[in-house]
Amino acid sequence: MKYLKSRIRSLQKKIKNLEILIDTTMVFSSILDIDELLNIVLQKAEEVMEAEVSSVFRIDEKKNDLYFFIARGEVGKEAKAIRVPMGKGIVGWVAQHGKPLLVPDVTKDRRWFKGVDKKTKFVTRSILAVPLITKGKIIGVAEVLNKKGNRRFNKDDLELFAALGNQIAIAIENASLYSELDELFKSSIRSISEAVDAKDPYTRGHSARVVEYSLLMGEAVGLSKDDLNNLEISAILHDVGKIGVPDSILGKPGKLTTQEYEYMKKHPEFGAGIIQPIDRLKKLSPNVLYHHERIDGNGYPTGLKGKRIPLPARIICIADSYDAMTTDRPYRKKKNIRAAFEELHRCSGTQFDPKLVRIFVTELEKQILYQST
Amino acid sequence: MKYLKSRIRSLQKKIKNLEILIDTTMVFSSILDIDELLNIVLQKAEEVMEAEVSSVFRIDEKKNDLYFFIARGEVGKEAKAIRVPMGKGIVGWVAQHGKPLLVPDVTKDRRWFKGVDKKTKFVTRSILAVPLITKGKIIGVAEVLNKKGNRRFNKDDLELFAALGNQIAIAIENASLYSELDELFKSSIRSISEAVDAKDPYTRGHSARVVEYSLLMGEAVGLSKDDLNNLEISAILHDVGKIGVPDSILGKPGKLTTQEYEYMKKHPEFGAGIIQPIDRLKKLSPNVLYHHERIDGNGYPTGLKGKRIPLPARIICIADSYDAMTTDRPYRKKKNIRAAFEELHRCSGTQFDPKLVRIFVTELEKQILYQST
Repeated sequence: MKYLKSRIRSLQKKIKNLEILIDTTMVFSSILDIDELLNIVLQKAEEVMEAEVSSVFRIDEKKNDLYFFIARGEVGKEAKAIRVPMGKGIVGWVAQHGKPLLVPDVTKDRRWFKGVDKKTKFVTRSILAVPLITKGKIIGVAEVLNKKGNRRFNKDDLELFAALGNQIAIAIENASLYSELDELFKSSIRSISEAVDAKDPYTRGHSARVVEYSLLMGEAVGLSKDDLNNLEISAILHDVGKIGVPDSILGKPGKLTTQEYEYMKKHPEFGAGIIQPIDRLKKLSPNVLYHHERIDGNGYPTGLKGKRIPLPARIICIADSYDAMTTDRPYRKKKNIRAAFEELHRCSGTQFDPKLVRIFVTELEKQILYQST
Repeated sequence: MKYLKSRIRSLQKKIKNLEILIDTTMVFSSILDIDELLNIVLQKAEEVMEAEVSSVFRIDEKKNDLYFFIARGEVGKEAKAIRVPMGKGIVGWVAQHGKPLLVPDVTKDRRWFKGVDKKTKFVTRSILAVPLITKGKIIGVAEVLNKKGNRRFNKDDLELFAALGNQIAIAIENASLYSELDELFKSSIRSISEAVDAKDPYTRGHSARVVEYSLLMGEAVGLSKDDLNNLEISAILHDVGKIGVPDSILGKPGKLTTQEYEYMKKHPEFGAGIIQPIDRLKKLSPNVLYHHERIDGNGYPTGLKGKRIPLPARIICIADSYDAMTTDRPYRKKKNIRAAFEELHRCSGTQFDPKLVRIFVTELEKQILYQST
């Protein structure tokens, strides 16, 4: 009877752990954003394992060491700079051997490396560390430190954490594959845009700078992560329509004739035409189409006015003009930053959105001050 | 005592189910390829639920109906053409109400739609159907038909299948997001390449045809899915370097001068230069760089010879030349297919890889015969 009751308790404990695992895996696997995922992973690891702190390390194959993929809690900042050589310390041992490790009391384990505690002023007592393995390959190590309530981790904890580690590994792998594909997409359109910029020696590097200035404004006005992403893609592609402009016009050393200028003014339409057939970019084509519109309605191609011009297009317009002012052109020298700011203010309310001009100038001044100190 | 033993059995059963769920979720979540995923999903669903057949339906929001996302087994082919209106039949009911449904005996359920059995000649006895819900949205329905051994599904089965449905939903959502991002990448470089083609009215649509011809050869020589994907990307981008060629040369109505031709011949290098900085495409840059090399070493830009020219470059070379032959040029009319095949054979072993020429001609002939019957 007593035996049966204890058996039931142990089965119930097992069910609880399995239910926790199913819950965590549902949460992990539904997140493809790597930063969001890692935050949730650590939060869940600490919650489930009742740990004070947790971290995830990733293996840097080239350098044959491990780096903090993320470290939460108070010690986060200091810890991030630390790199662990392969085979050194608890984490290095787990990475090398590919096996989970329970260290109930770190002071009694010779593998333990005191250096991190010294730097972070954290007092480690007990450690659980598991390898993160996907498709037969060790990609990192997850660890939890110090069981809450001054307790030590035990073998049951190790089993649960090892199972959690399997899920963490798959979730990190998926999120990494997704972000790699995203990077492939962005770096491809970036590289092609650079080639388009390079057709005119005077606009080399232009798109990259327009992206930088646009994101500066986008962040300052508080765009969401998704909207910032869309702004970035729109800014990368804002001049892609120049593929359709004859390079006798693009690279002309000197002012354009009226006829040439009329042709040049078609590049936003050409660009929107390139973006339009792409299902998931269709909605961004107005950002490209309208990046030469003016607040007062005297821009091109349609003379759209004020707030009717989409916000990303108003942002890109300022970024685009500022970069044009601050780089040399065949027919004039570049303006210095001060003069360019004055020019932005002078055209504020006619060519540019006044609020965005103020924000851009403020943010850029901050950045310049920060860089010069 | 008896009660405790039965309690233990029920707990053990629960543990078994939870372990199955953890096993399946690990399998599902580690697959981002949608076709591979669906195959595994159905295989596991049938195995775990001991069902004769299983299927996954997806909701088509525009048409407000459901279509077979995949149907395995003997009835697969016929079933794929069937569409289920929202609210109709068991599957339509589950899609509309967003609730799991157990139908122990279909003959006693008025919601059951006999049409599918009539078409597929399958005899349905018992059905379990669960909604696939991610982020609060019903994206489809999974169902298993007929518990093996002439048994009927019961409430325990429903509970397990509902849990499985949650995992299937997340896995499908992830795989869909991944394939959408992949499509975004490919359609972006496709659209830009089309814009480059369009600079010369005579090469409009060229890249798309080169992709088609290249994949025809790639499939015939038995390239892996990954290699086919890389071949496709290389073929899309093979002429992207023409961004760097003045359009006075690209669109010249008439033969190029020697000097102009020398400039034109730089486009493979320009193209490789665009691809080189893209981390995950770097390895494809030789495919672009060498697509004008000849087997006999008399091509450009480097005079690389025979098998030293990468296979994808040899494939693209044939596809590229064939398309050039079979489209009009300002200085000559297009060849008909027969004459183009003769030209390929004539240059086989000097300009082109003879084995690939044979394969290409054979495959294209097959395709043309198939289309004309």
